[in-house]
Amino acid sequence: MEHAQPLQLASRTARLKSSLVRDILAAAARPGMISFAGGLPAADLMPALPVAATAKPELYQYGTSEGEPAYRTAVAAWVGETGLKVSPDQVLALAGSQQGLDFAAKLLIDEGTPLLCEGPTYVAALQVFQLFGADVACVPLGAEGPDLVAFEHLLETKRPRAAYLIPCFQNPGGACYSPEARVAVAALLDRYNVLLIEDEPYRSVALDVAHPMTPICALLQRAPWIYLGSFSKILWPGWRLGFLAAHPALMQHLVRLKQAADLHTQRPGQAAVAHWLGSDARTADLERLLQGYRLRRDAMQLALQRHFGDIADWTMPCGGLFFWLRLRDGLEATRATLDRAIARGVAFMPGEAFFVDPAEGRQYLRLNYSRATPEEMMRGLELLADCIHARETA
Amino acid sequence: MEHAQPLQLASRTARLKSSLVRDILAAAARPGMISFAGGLPAADLMPALPVAATAKPELYQYGTSEGEPAYRTAVAAWVGETGLKVSPDQVLALAGSQQGLDFAAKLLIDEGTPLLCEGPTYVAALQVFQLFGADVACVPLGAEGPDLVAFEHLLETKRPRAAYLIPCFQNPGGACYSPEARVAVAALLDRYNVLLIEDEPYRSVALDVAHPMTPICALLQRAPWIYLGSFSKILWPGWRLGFLAAHPALMQHLVRLKQAADLHTQRPGQAAVAHWLGSDARTADLERLLQGYRLRRDAMQLALQRHFGDIADWTMPCGGLFFWLRLRDGLEATRATLDRAIARGVAFMPGEAFFVDPAEGRQYLRLNYSRATPEEMMRGLELLADCIHARETA
Repeated sequence: MEHAQPLQLASRTARLKSSLVRDILAAAARPGMISFAGGLPAADLMPALPVAATAKPELYQYGTSEGEPAYRTAVAAWVGETGLKVSPDQVLALAGSQQGLDFAAKLLIDEGTPLLCEGPTYVAALQVFQLFGADVACVPLGAEGPDLVAFEHLLETKRPRAAYLIPCFQNPGGACYSPEARVAVAALLDRYNVLLIEDEPYRSVALDVAHPMTPICALLQRAPWIYLGSFSKILWPGWRLGFLAAHPALMQHLVRLKQAADLHTQRPGQAAVAHWLGSDARTADLERLLQGYRLRRDAMQLALQRHFGDIADWTMPCGGLFFWLRLRDGLEATRATLDRAIARGVAFMPGEAFFVDPAEGRQYLRLNYSRATPEEMMRGLELLADCIHARETA
Repeated sequence: MEHAQPLQLASRTARLKSSLVRDILAAAARPGMISFAGGLPAADLMPALPVAATAKPELYQYGTSEGEPAYRTAVAAWVGETGLKVSPDQVLALAGSQQGLDFAAKLLIDEGTPLLCEGPTYVAALQVFQLFGADVACVPLGAEGPDLVAFEHLLETKRPRAAYLIPCFQNPGGACYSPEARVAVAALLDRYNVLLIEDEPYRSVALDVAHPMTPICALLQRAPWIYLGSFSKILWPGWRLGFLAAHPALMQHLVRLKQAADLHTQRPGQAAVAHWLGSDARTADLERLLQGYRLRRDAMQLALQRHFGDIADWTMPCGGLFFWLRLRDGLEATRATLDRAIARGVAFMPGEAFFVDPAEGRQYLRLNYSRATPEEMMRGLELLADCIHARETA
């Protein structure tokens, strides 16, 4: 007979850290808070759900792990419009693109596997990669792509098994890779034969597109790839619909991982998205949504110029849901700043949440523009600027 | 510069085996096939979806990782009816209970972690546990529970980190643990302080309940536990709604795993289930569904008595979706038997799919009763018995 033992869990659970982002979002949900912290899309501007398509009794029964044929076909065509040509057989329906990160981690990451990410990068990707034990190295990111010298140096020295990139309207930094950066990155990945995980949740939130945004996956000659897409910024995120497309050599593994994870993605949501993708209203729906996003983005730009013009630098985002600010003159926006801001009724996301080494993020903050009203933006950013200044005089 | 390398994947992908069950289900989907192979619930007997509850625009936006408050509250009450008292805070909404197996594996299993399962057991559980590297030991299962001497011997010698049990209408064996077996198993898990994963997808498909079925989780004094439930056998499996309830010490980890896996479960399905759980129609809906299941089960029993009475032994299932047959006189139902059967237009699931050591399953076959018509049962089982006999004369 055994004596009482402490709870034994898998070693990876030591890396299942409390998420700063989750903590902040919980605090930001308090009534009356002006929150620039989250990344909620504009659900009020989204097209109406095609209810009849979701309610069919023939969707009650279990479906296939790969996804509904109509969904896979419609998504393959939708992805094809980006310049990445895939067959429906290369598409896997997902419960949001976050699920694709879980599968990529399972497929690729052993304890200690080197992985290349952007710095800063998407927090929940970092979390799942680190949960599986990845040794993450980050390449510095500019407004038009990564530092290519640093990128090649990391490929050469770290020998990463995969690179995780968000080339369109990156979260949090807002970078949009130039056509030249896309070609150069693809060539480097091919040369070192490094698998690309290309994550594009914000591609459709393209407010002002200055240049073509061909997916890097479409430019690869040799390296294998996984392309992740989401409908959550344009269609009913609460329904959780995303997809991956992948190099044919990876599909069998990915379908088995899907089966082990949740058997298949709920069918009515797939039916709704397939219906919308095939509808005549699509272009007008999307333009109306983007027009709404543009108005909010522009209101935020105006409020920022008023209250942050003398203390921060930023590039107005041409897509995605965020402004990424770098404070001047040694000013910082840390967790302590956030605590003061929340006490005064305004929330933001400190830059430290987005770096493997939080110290790299102390000068940065991420501000979501899609939720607050113009009046809230003016009032909230004035308050926030005060809080950041107070940091210096504290 | 690197030379061409073969694709490097995580070591666990070597354990991402082709699933016999998937292969068989694909073959069984051919038009005209009489299939006893799958485990499709009777979607045609399920209550109508409460469409208005699913279509609300307030469900378009992202939800919480834990699940909708109304769903968690309704599920806590539903679980409470089994005898397992939980608070809504102990409930996590899942995209089907399969997802709970993925989370349990992530939470508990390192490479080589010993785990105790029933033999036979649920194939897709075995797959996910083995994918994460579990060293699975199986306890022999009788009609009313596991061999208790073998159970304690395995606890003593293998020191499993967790036990995975399906005490109600087990898949594939149909076992339903007696009240005495439940008490004894709980006492052993407490004594050795082994975490219990109790999986109950079939609890609600209770056709003839001879005795109380208190969850073993409710009988534990000391050992931690995860309780998995599903609505997929009674409400719209294509919508993928399940849940877990867990010991409070585990909830924080499980919520973080949910966030990393897919952020949250789609909200409209949670709203539909919560609506049904709170509706007056619930009891009548369930009784109509169970009456339909009973008729099909009884038709299968009749057809089996006619065509398998002299070659197999079985216990008529008092719940769940399957008959589990043991062939007499050295007869076998292997993959080769299946190939012959499929060639003649009838499919079943060979027992070998359900054992860690497939050789243990050669005498067994699993037959689903919920899909075929009575006429198909008569014709299909006659054909199948012929195929099994042919094995001997081949």
